[in-house]
Amino acid sequence: MNSDALIDQVVFDADGLVPAIVQDGTTNEVLMMAYMNEATLRQTLETGLMTYWSRSRRQVWVKGETSGHTQEVKEIRLDCDGDTLVFKVLQHGGAACHTGYRSCFHRRFANDELTLSGVRLFDPDAVYGGKEG
Amino acid sequence: MNSDALIDQVVFDADGLVPAIVQDGTTNEVLMMAYMNEATLRQTLETGLMTYWSRSRRQVWVKGETSGHTQEVKEIRLDCDGDTLVFKVLQHGGAACHTGYRSCFHRRFANDELTLSGVRLFDPDAVYGGKEG
Repeated sequence: MNSDALIDQVVFDADGLVPAIVQDGTTNEVLMMAYMNEATLRQTLETGLMTYWSRSRRQVWVKGETSGHTQEVKEIRLDCDGDTLVFKVLQHGGAACHTGYRSCFHRRFANDELTLSGVRLFDPDAVYGGKEG
Repeated sequence: MNSDALIDQVVFDADGLVPAIVQDGTTNEVLMMAYMNEATLRQTLETGLMTYWSRSRRQVWVKGETSGHTQEVKEIRLDCDGDTLVFKVLQHGGAACHTGYRSCFHRRFANDELTLSGVRLFDPDAVYGGKEG
């Protein structure tokens, strides 16, 4: 694969990062957003598995490496000014969020209240034993 | 409306901004991503119209103020760590992108090529005469 036709058009921010919005490839539900640097974007393109740069842990983060809940790339889109990516994925294991919810966006704001919305698919303590991924 | 139940949970970045992912409320297509500060998030909640902080122009940006292509808020979600918002909207005028495309994510990467994907709904020169919005 030649990834340069995409990477050359990506405008990385001052920290060398680009936000990656992740959608379920079937339902279009937004599952999460995380960040990639050039190396992890290239790794994502080459392996077909979503690979981020963890800003908090300052390390390469192959999504699902610990939990088995990997994300298989189905479609890649770049926005008009090149500073944001959308990936449509096949979410293995059903849950994208380390809290056990399908989507990280499981808090809904309505009627002046923030409430949980969505089903918890696994118990994070049982899966990670304290580790993210 | 009391917006504080949401705003108190939002983790703004070092520049005081939070990314807002915008989805079509019917199809779940991701239309764009832009940034809000606390004031424009509050304005969005109070008016029901998507209102951003333009990082390039350094000013409040009521989406559609120039073009008429406003975005009416239908649903609001916050992610697990509070640093990203999703808004589902009714996109008036059909096109979210200032280039005239329905979505800003109208470039698709496949087979080592970045190609245009989607229909251009209007001619930006005719709508803006050089101004964004």
